[in-house]
Amino acid sequence: MTVLENFLNGDKRALSKIISYIENREDGYRELLGKLYAKSGNAIRIGVTGPPGAGKSTLVNALLHKFLKENKKVGVIAVDPSSPFTGGALLGDRVRMHEFPLDGNIFFRSMATRGASGGLTAATNNILVAMDAFGFDVTIVETVGVGQVELDIIDACDTVVVTLVPESGDAVQAMKAGLMEIADVFAVNKADRPNSDRIVTDLRMALEFKAHDEHTWMIPVVPTVAIEQKNIDELYDKIFEHIAFIKANGNFEIHRRLQIEKKIIAILKSRFEKEYLEKLAEKVDFHDISEKVFLGKTNPYIVASELFADFKKQ
Amino acid sequence: MTVLENFLNGDKRALSKIISYIENREDGYRELLGKLYAKSGNAIRIGVTGPPGAGKSTLVNALLHKFLKENKKVGVIAVDPSSPFTGGALLGDRVRMHEFPLDGNIFFRSMATRGASGGLTAATNNILVAMDAFGFDVTIVETVGVGQVELDIIDACDTVVVTLVPESGDAVQAMKAGLMEIADVFAVNKADRPNSDRIVTDLRMALEFKAHDEHTWMIPVVPTVAIEQKNIDELYDKIFEHIAFIKANGNFEIHRRLQIEKKIIAILKSRFEKEYLEKLAEKVDFHDISEKVFLGKTNPYIVASELFADFKKQ
Repeated sequence: MTVLENFLNGDKRALSKIISYIENREDGYRELLGKLYAKSGNAIRIGVTGPPGAGKSTLVNALLHKFLKENKKVGVIAVDPSSPFTGGALLGDRVRMHEFPLDGNIFFRSMATRGASGGLTAATNNILVAMDAFGFDVTIVETVGVGQVELDIIDACDTVVVTLVPESGDAVQAMKAGLMEIADVFAVNKADRPNSDRIVTDLRMALEFKAHDEHTWMIPVVPTVAIEQKNIDELYDKIFEHIAFIKANGNFEIHRRLQIEKKIIAILKSRFEKEYLEKLAEKVDFHDISEKVFLGKTNPYIVASELFADFKKQ
Repeated sequence: MTVLENFLNGDKRALSKIISYIENREDGYRELLGKLYAKSGNAIRIGVTGPPGAGKSTLVNALLHKFLKENKKVGVIAVDPSSPFTGGALLGDRVRMHEFPLDGNIFFRSMATRGASGGLTAATNNILVAMDAFGFDVTIVETVGVGQVELDIIDACDTVVVTLVPESGDAVQAMKAGLMEIADVFAVNKADRPNSDRIVTDLRMALEFKAHDEHTWMIPVVPTVAIEQKNIDELYDKIFEHIAFIKANGNFEIHRRLQIEKKIIAILKSRFEKEYLEKLAEKVDFHDISEKVFLGKTNPYIVASELFADFKKQ
């Protein structure tokens, strides 16, 4: 049996292999992704983001317990930012994998992103497609919302849960606008701590002030204590209310089709890079060119114009 | 007089205009940058990065006072991350501009990065070229080290100062490897706080363990109290020792030439995007395509392959 056959038979080790295959862009990965695309489109995509320390992993774990109870299969991908100033998430993932064993309905994957920026959005989306094709009902992307790349990834989700904690309160004022653009549901986690009422009220008031009518989704604010599984049922309900809402008003399809257009553009960029730029060094003497620029005899814009004119003549 | 003439005569308002012109990619900005490139190459580039709260702005301000004393002209660009979970830096910049008036030897520019990810690295590098051509002795890029884009920007600098605080101590163990790849000089700021000795010793020990010989730059660890201007002279000296070191061993030129190659590749990508991808929507019916993909009749890889084949036939 081929790996793909095993994959289609529901073998999670085959899923892991196929994800690695895609991640490493091995020969023929585009054709493989084409096949996976044909089988995908059924899983809903949930994004969970929030500042460091807001308890995103704990919240996702709590949601996973609820999903298990509802007999849903879920694929989770944790995207760590490439910053050298964060870290340690991988250890946490190993702990989580013990909580949700490999033979169950939950599947975990971490993306180590250092140095992988160019392809991170693409790689994450491709893995979501693989999980979708594998037959998960739900896929979840969990990421710290730092950097544009992480925002692009979150933007590809159908429903985005922004996680805050009572301590985030002081910062809320400044970032309200930005957060409201991203969030479909707010979870105020660790809501058993002092001052949690304040941030919940503050957020709700700000949301009230936004222009809205019956066609607008009213972003709910759900206080949770993820570690005690408190109010997770409500959070779960709000997520699925949002999905139902955007399916009813057409935004689900509009958003997915926009993502498809973005994907096509991204593939075209990647083809140009792979089939032209990566081979450029074989054709031109970059050592000579960079020396001339360094010495001020020409500049990168003139060089690039000449190279691009040659390319178009081919 | 044209704006460019005023610029060449040292008019800072003309510099501001030219930076906006480049940032907005107005018609002819490539030709303009070509001209600026011809006049650039003299300013050294210092990157200052570190986690939020490490006092990067204060450290840069302290360095600026030292630069003023040394009669050096300095252009500073502050790059804020696009994360909705940070913010407020712009207000701080207004305060800084009062500290260093516009008619002096210091020039400030902030980059508001939200939504500008694609071009952020390019835009920052272009502004550094403009500042260089304007005649600054030194250009400084200040950024929170989150996200790959910010790392790329920092990587383009000749000398990178990584700023930490005593509180960063616990995190150091985990991130040592990553930080050492980036840093040319460590500044442990707020070194009057408890436990500052520990992180200084810890970093120095870790640096000792790295393989090194007389050809290797030994990364110094400088404790500072930026707000009191303490030990800033030593930090300044270490920065210039590093510049002298890499100029002597050839790495200065190697690194700059690598950046030139990267710049040429980046311009080619941008040309492909501008001259082909942005016009694609005029030629093909994306509405029809995305619907077919959404309904599972085709997939983005097949569509992109067909489009790319057409493009190459042109």
